[in-house]
Amino acid sequence: MLEPQDIIRLDDEAVVVLDQTRLPAERVERRCTTVPELIDAIRVLAVRGAPALGVAGAMGVALAARTAPDHPVGMRQYLAEQGALLAAARPTAVNLAWGVEQALAELDRPVRSPQEARGRIAARARRIRDDEVARCRAMGAHGAALFGDRAELMTQCNTGGLATGGYGTALGVVFALAEGGGDPHVYVPETRPLLQGARLTAYELAEAGVRHTLVTDNATGAILREGAVAGILVGADRIAANGDTANKIGTYNLAVLALHHDVPFYVVAPSSTIDPATPSGAVIPIEQRPGAEVTGFGGVVTAPPATTARNDAFDVTPAELVTAIVTEHGVLRAPYDLRSERPDG
Amino acid sequence: MLEPQDIIRLDDEAVVVLDQTRLPAERVERRCTTVPELIDAIRVLAVRGAPALGVAGAMGVALAARTAPDHPVGMRQYLAEQGALLAAARPTAVNLAWGVEQALAELDRPVRSPQEARGRIAARARRIRDDEVARCRAMGAHGAALFGDRAELMTQCNTGGLATGGYGTALGVVFALAEGGGDPHVYVPETRPLLQGARLTAYELAEAGVRHTLVTDNATGAILREGAVAGILVGADRIAANGDTANKIGTYNLAVLALHHDVPFYVVAPSSTIDPATPSGAVIPIEQRPGAEVTGFGGVVTAPPATTARNDAFDVTPAELVTAIVTEHGVLRAPYDLRSERPDG
Repeated sequence: MLEPQDIIRLDDEAVVVLDQTRLPAERVERRCTTVPELIDAIRVLAVRGAPALGVAGAMGVALAARTAPDHPVGMRQYLAEQGALLAAARPTAVNLAWGVEQALAELDRPVRSPQEARGRIAARARRIRDDEVARCRAMGAHGAALFGDRAELMTQCNTGGLATGGYGTALGVVFALAEGGGDPHVYVPETRPLLQGARLTAYELAEAGVRHTLVTDNATGAILREGAVAGILVGADRIAANGDTANKIGTYNLAVLALHHDVPFYVVAPSSTIDPATPSGAVIPIEQRPGAEVTGFGGVVTAPPATTARNDAFDVTPAELVTAIVTEHGVLRAPYDLRSERPDG
Repeated sequence: MLEPQDIIRLDDEAVVVLDQTRLPAERVERRCTTVPELIDAIRVLAVRGAPALGVAGAMGVALAARTAPDHPVGMRQYLAEQGALLAAARPTAVNLAWGVEQALAELDRPVRSPQEARGRIAARARRIRDDEVARCRAMGAHGAALFGDRAELMTQCNTGGLATGGYGTALGVVFALAEGGGDPHVYVPETRPLLQGARLTAYELAEAGVRHTLVTDNATGAILREGAVAGILVGADRIAANGDTANKIGTYNLAVLALHHDVPFYVVAPSSTIDPATPSGAVIPIEQRPGAEVTGFGGVVTAPPATTARNDAFDVTPAELVTAIVTEHGVLRAPYDLRSERPDG
């Protein structure tokens, strides 16, 4: 299994991330020594996944603090600006803005020197990563209790350590089952357009020695119809107060298919993914990504030049299709009222 | 729009097909001068689509007849063997075996010479293609009557002239709407793993000047949820007597999504696709294709080496999810009893 420090870390010069755009062919680190470099890494999805984006946001503020003015007012203003730029790098995942805010909150406490402020922000950023991993292990334990030893499962996109800074959310449940002596098998939809299933989830499961089968996103219905799948486990980029869940495009397809086949559909996400300020999925902004991700792949153009593509990065699954939401606190069941759910980070 | 003779034809030396594996980047013909060459073209999907496979099967028998023994008994035995090889090239589409049988049936009529037998088989093969195109135009007219002038539609895979030898089945309905002065818009799922949507359907719609938007197979649910799509139109590789329909993998996902969103789901296919000998979808063989089509994309390997893939080429949509079946004879509605449906070719 990938270790947290191999996925994302803050060192003396940079935020260092494992470049997920190069996996699984190459295992290469990407060193971001400035906020614009980190924003670029976030935009191209070198670092991605809602919880990992929270870590990246906080580490980005720590990076900015190193070049911030010494004066408290100037530092606060500079970091607020840099934090806003970071938070805007991707609009759907609430964790990114949450991580930025967590780091900025260190400025609300009295400090004796600019160096102390910088040190506190860096410590908070590192702690957020370690807290995410701890939350993932808690989610894994709660989720694993829902399944038997040889569970057939299905997931979407990547929700392993690469998405969280370590261990994983939905995939953390799989790792918890395997660590507990179980022998789960996971159907992995490839997750077009960026193939996080084929490239990242398959990689993490192979590294961990967990049985898995890669399929196209088109094959999910035929597999569910066979009746062997015990549950679908997905992550979340933002959960509204009513339980509506924004996640990787295709998640909604799986939720409808799960309902039709009477298969439980679980959202596994830290409470930092819950946004009490978002009443329902209808107001969650859906990031539109370049059509070129759909008209081609890996530099190969597949569609004709006259053809344009629509490329929603996420979709929204209404709460009524979600069997339960698994957070670090436990298993929440419908009807959801998440207005009082607060991250403990 | 592509002309039938540009898609598949029988000339003095070969069965000549437009190589669909090279579209849309290149428009290259593939000349098959022997049955093994034609089988190879069928297996790699240089020629594909249920009705076009029927044409290819018949033209393949005509090709074999040229080197068959002159004696009637020897010719019959040789062509039966070659026909069986052709029919086995792909197991799911009933049209391939149907086309072979149509050509072989010419041997049941009295002939005065081996040359006359060869000539009759070639004429029958050519007529099958022209009949398919005529049936497509009839289907197009029946299907177009179901929609308004600016219909928002969705399809799967490729069902245009490339799939039928000219005009198309589900896509023929779109062409009929456009030819009738309408201005339809089509959502085109790319259709992994082989991207017939992105490569072929987008190409045919672009050539015909029909508005269309390419999307990933994951985006279909989110689009249907918006409420604008008036109908989903798909083709068929085999329709059982009870209406269960085998078609490109992912068709079943669309059918379940259509039910959930109360969107009509239409199967558009010539009556030659109906197999009265197949009582239900449970006994339709589903072709398993190489996992490498899923573990890679356009020659680029995307999944890790330890990962294996499952690659069903087709899935089965149960009849209860099919709003209507549109054939050249008209619009059939549930409950389906197709035991007496006979192709008129």
